[in-house]
Amino acid sequence: MNKKDLFGQIKAKSSYLCVGLDTDIQKIPEHLKKADDPLFEFNKQIIDATIDYAVAYKPNIAFYEAHGLKGWESLMKTIEYIPKEAFVIADAKRGDIGNTSKMYARAFFEEMNCDAITVAPYMGEDSVKPFLDFKNKWVILLALTSNAGGKDFQNLTLDSGEEVYERVLSKSQEWGSSEELMYVVGATKAEALKNIRQIVPDHFLLVPGVGAQGGSLEEVSKYGMNSECGLLVNSSRGIIYKDSSEAFAQVAGQEANTLQQEMSKYLEKYC
Amino acid sequence: MNKKDLFGQIKAKSSYLCVGLDTDIQKIPEHLKKADDPLFEFNKQIIDATIDYAVAYKPNIAFYEAHGLKGWESLMKTIEYIPKEAFVIADAKRGDIGNTSKMYARAFFEEMNCDAITVAPYMGEDSVKPFLDFKNKWVILLALTSNAGGKDFQNLTLDSGEEVYERVLSKSQEWGSSEELMYVVGATKAEALKNIRQIVPDHFLLVPGVGAQGGSLEEVSKYGMNSECGLLVNSSRGIIYKDSSEAFAQVAGQEANTLQQEMSKYLEKYC
Repeated sequence: MNKKDLFGQIKAKSSYLCVGLDTDIQKIPEHLKKADDPLFEFNKQIIDATIDYAVAYKPNIAFYEAHGLKGWESLMKTIEYIPKEAFVIADAKRGDIGNTSKMYARAFFEEMNCDAITVAPYMGEDSVKPFLDFKNKWVILLALTSNAGGKDFQNLTLDSGEEVYERVLSKSQEWGSSEELMYVVGATKAEALKNIRQIVPDHFLLVPGVGAQGGSLEEVSKYGMNSECGLLVNSSRGIIYKDSSEAFAQVAGQEANTLQQEMSKYLEKYC
Repeated sequence: MNKKDLFGQIKAKSSYLCVGLDTDIQKIPEHLKKADDPLFEFNKQIIDATIDYAVAYKPNIAFYEAHGLKGWESLMKTIEYIPKEAFVIADAKRGDIGNTSKMYARAFFEEMNCDAITVAPYMGEDSVKPFLDFKNKWVILLALTSNAGGKDFQNLTLDSGEEVYERVLSKSQEWGSSEELMYVVGATKAEALKNIRQIVPDHFLLVPGVGAQGGSLEEVSKYGMNSECGLLVNSSRGIIYKDSSEAFAQVAGQEANTLQQEMSKYLEKYC
């Protein structure tokens, strides 16, 4: 999916919601645990219930990998099940030297037909570029993450005065345009968004951590949005685990709808 | 495997060789491509031919992941096939927030019973610690990688005067001891090893890039070794793709033997 089509979907649904499929066998409703493929069954119902309100889905690869072959099957079935209109992000945080990144790119872009993959920047240009060789596929580079450990290295100050994550933002723009590169930016640091938008005015930002981790959607939208929206805001636990009864999917749909309605306002106000 | 047992294996085999299983369907000998599971068949023969000279094997996960479910099957069969005496490193370069890293840890340490996993440091403490909760399992943290892009961020100078990779080395020692934490250090920068050994005197270093990427084994050994060896030196392409005829495994064994003999000398000289 290219940028124009993504923005088209955002306008069509008045939403920039990404639903995180961090599907944990221990957290899904009891009645699903007896299903043939509980992870897929859960995801299927979540997708059905949220597709009208979400423009993207983000399976967290670790949650599937933890179950070995069976988990990979659940993942692949889930990705196939997601309607073509939605943008699919493999939250894999991969990144290795050229040859190896190319293999990962094939796995996620060709074997699984995802639209995007999250990539860690530590190994630099030749670990990121192989992912950019795939047309209409996206790299979402970790810049500023919302976890406590993020500050261990991302917020260190360089002798140039920049912080490390700022250098990641500025340097990586030499590698790919805003048509193929996005950034992960933790929502709990909404103040930093103003600064980030000065460095990367045109790029989409994937913002995790609104909801369970307590970021403010309005602040993120106010400071993070650009003229093509430029935001995908993820919610995982706040949607998919809001309810653990047989009505879980219905409740997930309501949560997604509530977020979408709020997003609709901000799209009018800030975009 | 704990540090004492690893050093025991190194002494028993007079070797600190790690064989990288970057098994690429396009590079394996023609006659194997018709096998039921070509990747596994190739690995099996490589392992049989090199086990007397190698203390560790390092499957590069991307090469398996690129083939989807079938690739994961090949990987799991390979890991099961590696004799218990050898140290198994999942070269996966994972790393995500706590909950997710725990899932990856389960995948590689429990589902697959690997001894170690390579982890990217960008997300900091809470992305690394969940891997350290597993007894007798290891994190191998990326510090200084040998690829060209490594310098994009790893060699940036902080306002403290340290380079980013030096801070990764010093900071991460707060998270785990040399009984559970190793570092990836690119062999092409053997000069930096002296400096690295001052920061992490006791930790094992995994050194990729000797051979195909041209690092000098003697220099690495001279500056990188400590009193418990403290080195695992990896060779992938230089061993496994040295020959592409039906004699590939025999030639791989000879290459491994040659490296082991050289290592045997350095163990006497520098350890």
